[in-house]
Amino acid sequence: MILPPDGLPSRISIVFLIFMHNLPIPTEPELRATLQRIKPYVHHTPVLTSRLVNAAAGAELYFKCENLQKVGAFKFRGAINAVLQLTEEERARGVATHSSGNHAQALALAARMHAVNAHIVMPTSAPEVKSAAVAGYGAEIIWCAPTLQAREATLQEVVERTGATVIHPYDNHQVICGQSTVAQELLRKNNALDIVIAPVGGGGLISGTALAVKYYNPAIQVIAAEPAGAADAYASFKTGQLVPSVNPNTFADGLLTSLSPRTFTIIRQYVDAILTASDDEIRQAMLLVWERLKIIIEPSGAVPLAVILKNKDLFAGKKVGVIISGGNVDVRKFRF
Amino acid sequence: MILPPDGLPSRISIVFLIFMHNLPIPTEPELRATLQRIKPYVHHTPVLTSRLVNAAAGAELYFKCENLQKVGAFKFRGAINAVLQLTEEERARGVATHSSGNHAQALALAARMHAVNAHIVMPTSAPEVKSAAVAGYGAEIIWCAPTLQAREATLQEVVERTGATVIHPYDNHQVICGQSTVAQELLRKNNALDIVIAPVGGGGLISGTALAVKYYNPAIQVIAAEPAGAADAYASFKTGQLVPSVNPNTFADGLLTSLSPRTFTIIRQYVDAILTASDDEIRQAMLLVWERLKIIIEPSGAVPLAVILKNKDLFAGKKVGVIISGGNVDVRKFRF
Repeated sequence: MILPPDGLPSRISIVFLIFMHNLPIPTEPELRATLQRIKPYVHHTPVLTSRLVNAAAGAELYFKCENLQKVGAFKFRGAINAVLQLTEEERARGVATHSSGNHAQALALAARMHAVNAHIVMPTSAPEVKSAAVAGYGAEIIWCAPTLQAREATLQEVVERTGATVIHPYDNHQVICGQSTVAQELLRKNNALDIVIAPVGGGGLISGTALAVKYYNPAIQVIAAEPAGAADAYASFKTGQLVPSVNPNTFADGLLTSLSPRTFTIIRQYVDAILTASDDEIRQAMLLVWERLKIIIEPSGAVPLAVILKNKDLFAGKKVGVIISGGNVDVRKFRF
Repeated sequence: MILPPDGLPSRISIVFLIFMHNLPIPTEPELRATLQRIKPYVHHTPVLTSRLVNAAAGAELYFKCENLQKVGAFKFRGAINAVLQLTEEERARGVATHSSGNHAQALALAARMHAVNAHIVMPTSAPEVKSAAVAGYGAEIIWCAPTLQAREATLQEVVERTGATVIHPYDNHQVICGQSTVAQELLRKNNALDIVIAPVGGGGLISGTALAVKYYNPAIQVIAAEPAGAADAYASFKTGQLVPSVNPNTFADGLLTSLSPRTFTIIRQYVDAILTASDDEIRQAMLLVWERLKIIIEPSGAVPLAVILKNKDLFAGKKVGVIISGGNVDVRKFRF
């Protein structure tokens, strides 16, 4: 049995208590239906390969490029699926979330595509480029202090005011179904993989990935890649207890959040291993992708390759599906 | 009749005199055969779209991403086709060229894939990252002074020494056939385009593009995009005389070369317009692609988008195929 650890935010504890014996894990038919449902709305992102990166890794790597997804990240898949699953009444009341990152943009765009109002709580510390994008999609931005407490309290106020449905960035059944479509597309294209590896932050992407892979072929290994500076999923996986992310410190700023009981339950059951990489290893992997694959990926998206390059024995000669989660870096800051 | 202008390199003048009445323009069956011939060796590069870039342009843009091609540029298509068309005897003697850029890497890789020796004359001014790549593909590098005269004289010595076949970067029938496959793939995927636009330097890519497009559907307009700081093709097109590139000055350093009589003949006959953009416009377009499409493109690859953003009336509401030629920028120089 999983125990709720001390120090988790209260909302997660409540969710935990509700679902601890009855966590609804997305089923295979649900995942397949999701793929069909969201197909008209998402980019079918390409799978890229590079001889030179393969030579560096000693393995055959197939990069599934969610940096080329709408809003520049896989997050759009979960958001659009959640919006598509709203009832007419829920659509009329709108959606809400708190996020300073890719989920905010993803939900804002998904909502706009279906003429649903989106209310996004953002900390005043959010990069201007991200809030501008959210505003550009026509969402209402509600500013708050940059603490989890302020974010949750402000979101609560928004919900009371509007009746909007909260779409959590990862602790949400429909969001996890949506994220599973990355691996579903990958496996439909490359069905002879030995391993699939994806980054883990809150666990939405890796949960969807692991379910899609194991439903498809349980012999394919699923590996989660995590920054060493935010290795709460690694600690949770190792101890069997949900360890929250406390004072994470990593350059891969998309992976700072804690698992939820929902994602931890799926990860424990469907993920084979969690491996970590240091910020320097992540940075080197990111540069290698920029240089050799000619695509822009964000630090979080480079963690799987960093893990592969760090653990060459584990991956030697293997066919590996590598999920690149996103590409939202501020290129205007580049000096060249 | 086209007159050979003063100041063209002597080799080009000789080619001109030989072919001025009888330039062999690649035929439709030749282009189709090339697509089949090189298919096993090239990446079938993706076509990307971006709502935000479309909104900025006021047009529907389909980016054919040759920055994601092997060696990071379309040049590999022409090089592999030229190597595949060698006789057994020619293969045994090897191939040679002079190039400081993408063609050098493309020919080196194409040759290695078929166990053909490659001899690449490079100016001592070539970036170390490019010469390292060429050496990495196992080609012989012959250094020379950074002048066209030194390059041609050194290449001549290499040919006398080895008997290698010279594969010119663009003034070559098989190379132009190879470059045509970019547009062939694009049109097979998006057949309802109004315009196809590609950059022009020496004219290999735009020649292959124009032939492929006009054979497929003469109603589709073909536009060449050129840096204002190296607008020799624009001047040639306008005056009907082949104007050489003299002291070109542009940030788009892949587009400095002159047309050849061969490419000029095709361009005059099959290209509808040549439009130019300034370095600042090219830089802004490049950043927009990095930011919105999440791919790394080199300055030369951004010239078509720069031209579109500069001439919005011309492209308004049109479906436009935009050929991104390459992505070879030194990302290790980025500061972020």
